[in-house]
Parts: sequence; structure tokens; C-alpha cells
Amino acid sequence: MNPTERTQISRHSKRGSYDTAVIYPILDEGLVCHVSYQLNGQPFLIPTAYCRIADTIYLHGSVGSHFMRELAQGKQVCVAVTLMDGLVLARSAFQHSVNYRSVVLFGQSQEVTDEAERWRVFEQVVEHIVPGRWADSRQPNASELTKTLLIAIPIEEASAKVRTGGVSPESTEDRALPYWAGVIPLSLQAGIPEQDLPVNEAVPMPAYVKAYKRGQ
Amino acid sequence: MNPTERTQISRHSKRGSYDTAVIYPILDEGLVCHVSYQLNGQPFLIPTAYCRIADTIYLHGSVGSHFMRELAQGKQVCVAVTLMDGLVLARSAFQHSVNYRSVVLFGQSQEVTDEAERWRVFEQVVEHIVPGRWADSRQPNASELTKTLLIAIPIEEASAKVRTGGVSPESTEDRALPYWAGVIPLSLQAGIPEQDLPVNEAVPMPAYVKAYKRGQ
Repeated sequence: MNPTERTQISRHSKRGSYDTAVIYPILDEGLVCHVSYQLNGQPFLIPTAYCRIADTIYLHGSVGSHFMRELAQGKQVCVAVTLMDGLVLARSAFQHSVNYRSVVLFGQSQEVTDEAERWRVFEQVVEHIVPGRWADSRQPNASELTKTLLIAIPIEEASAKVRTGGVSPESTEDRALPYWAGVIPLSLQAGIPEQDLPVNEAVPMPAYVKAYKRGQ
Repeated sequence: MNPTERTQISRHSKRGSYDTAVIYPILDEGLVCHVSYQLNGQPFLIPTAYCRIADTIYLHGSVGSHFMRELAQGKQVCVAVTLMDGLVLARSAFQHSVNYRSVVLFGQSQEVTDEAERWRVFEQVVEHIVPGRWADSRQPNASELTKTLLIAIPIEEASAKVRTGGVSPESTEDRALPYWAGVIPLSLQAGIPEQDLPVNEAVPMPAYVKAYKRGQ
């Protein structure tokens, strides 16, 4: 993608990228996105689950959701996905930083009405969050399909911003200070799965649950 | 706080709260917030670090940041903080859910110019991210203070939304299906700290680094 007026990165531009090979893996690793839109001249922001198929972001929600109904009418939106990778502790407070990978994208929302596309989105929404789960769960029935609104946001423009690595070079004076410096890595980790009881105790825990892992 | 037209939760309203005893701990646990604002009639969204002092959210950034300079002029903003706590796997795809704690708040941004307040914010920005670090690092000098823009967002309205617990009650038919159901807990975990080398190897790792932990 080419940088545009909306996506051009001005601060720390070396951390920026307009390459889908950088942008899409971030979108695929995130579990929640934040969607920004305007309503009556006021900025609104909603955190929600999502998935990506090709160059489109999809959201799902209830037909009763005010937010989803707004988006179904077609709104200009800005969507962000942010992954935290670590805390960078420099010797000076000023040079403290954060390792992260983030994407900001722009698009016009629209309702998904084509039945075949809707089915693909249902599957991908589940597969995005827990790969392997779609085929190992009861798929939506007619009533559930009717209750669900699906929104497509074709990605018009997008940029990624990534900081990796250690403490940025400090002055000789700072480096001599008696303060610990380094990186505390952070990652979203899965704990021990808690089985729903008391029914179906006999169903073994699937491998995709036992070994659930996000990112590298 | 009282719910307003902007913060009233319409979907899953039982998950909503307007109580600062629910809202503030979420703001204090989060590391990154998303800030939504308008520019030329267009919604924009920026992920950034922050801290809370009393009823105000503070952001910090470079005086060269386009975003920060916009906020310094006074903008209506919407800010969200979202914490992921788990994935809820029902037997039906439709009833899959997510455990989370999120806050959405509204306010008018303004620059912080009072020197005493600025100093408190510098300290709190560091302490919010790594408690114990402010006193164990070199504090900002005059030049660094000049380079930093601080933004206050007094919280005008805020709401929290929280989902906890297991799979929502399923139909008898669904409960009999041979699919595993339950919760995969998620949390942001610190890995093994990586010390900045080759200088200051003799400085021991502080306890607040060794035992870094976010949330409960």
C-alpha cells in the first residue's frame, strides 16, 4: 500500500510500514480491535472482536446493537489493532519506551448480505480467535444467522508501526548511572483451560485448546 | 457517575457499570489506551501510553507530534482501555464469547502547562507502567521537559463493560453435543527481563522488574 495523508507516519517514521506483509500478520494476531466512528459530530470508540479475509476486516454483532446498525448504514471508520511486546526501561525516565506492533486502517463500513460471504465470515470469525474450532462446534442455525449482523470494512488505507529491540542509545553520562536498564518482555498468554461442567466431562480437551498460543 | 446518552450501555446492559470503583482499576491496569478524535470530519485513532490521576487521564508525547499538538488545542475525544481475560468456547459457534474488562470515556483534551502538575504527571506516567521505577531512574532534565507535551483529559463521562465466568447457559440439545466447552484464560504476562548490555552489568535487577506483574 502507499502512504496517504491519513496514514503517513510522522513520528518515528522508521518504525512505520505500509507493507501488507507487516500489516496483515498484526491484524491476524490481534484478538480485539478498536473501531472509531463519528455520530452527531462526536467521536465514538468500540472495542470488538474481528477477523480479516483478504483485504477486508469483518465485525459481527447482534442485529439489536446500535453500533452495528450504525455501521450497517455505511460509515467512515478508523480501526486499530495494538499488540504489546515489552517495556523498555532506560536509565533516564525520558528514554523509557514500549515495544509494540500496531496497525491503524481506514475504510467505509458496509453490511454483508451475500449468504456465501456471510458463511465464510462466520467461519473466519471463529477460526481467527481459536484456530480449529469451527469444525469442532455446532455451526449457526437459521435463527442464529438471522440474529447476527455482519459488517465488512474493506481496507482503503493502512499503516503499521513497530518498535522492537532494547534501550535506545543513551548518553555516556546516563549509561554510567547505577540504574538497571533493559526490557521486560510482555505477551498475551493462555492459562490452564477450565472445562465447562458438569456435562460432557468425557469429551477430551482438543489439542487446539490445550496448546492455545497467540503470536510467535 | 451517571450514565449519559453517550455512555449508556444498550447491549448486555447487565455487564455495564458507571461506578468508578469498577472503572478506575481497569484504567490503572491497562498499559495502552486508544484515543479517538476527529480531524477534518474524519475519525482518527491512536494507541498510546497513558496514566490516570484522580478523575483525569494524561497522555504524553513529543512537542513534534501532530497528534499531540492537535489535542493540545482542545478536542473532544473518546478513549478506550480494553483488557482481555479469556476466550469462552461454547458448544455452538453462536454462543462463543470473550471475557474482558473495558472502559470507554469521553472528555475534552487540554495541554498541561502548570509545572507542578507536569512533574506529577511525568512521575505517574512512569509509575503507572512500572511501579517503583520513577525513584530508580534519572528524572527529566530541563531540555527533556521542554521536548515533552502533556495532555490532560478530564473524564466527563465513563462506563465500564465486564464479562466474566464460563459458558452462558446452553440449550439441552447443545449441551449434549460431543464438543469440548469451557474457558481459555488469557493474561498479559511478563517474560524473563533482558538486561541492557554491556554496561552496568553489576547493577542488580530490581525487585519491581524481577516480579513484574499486571493485574491480579
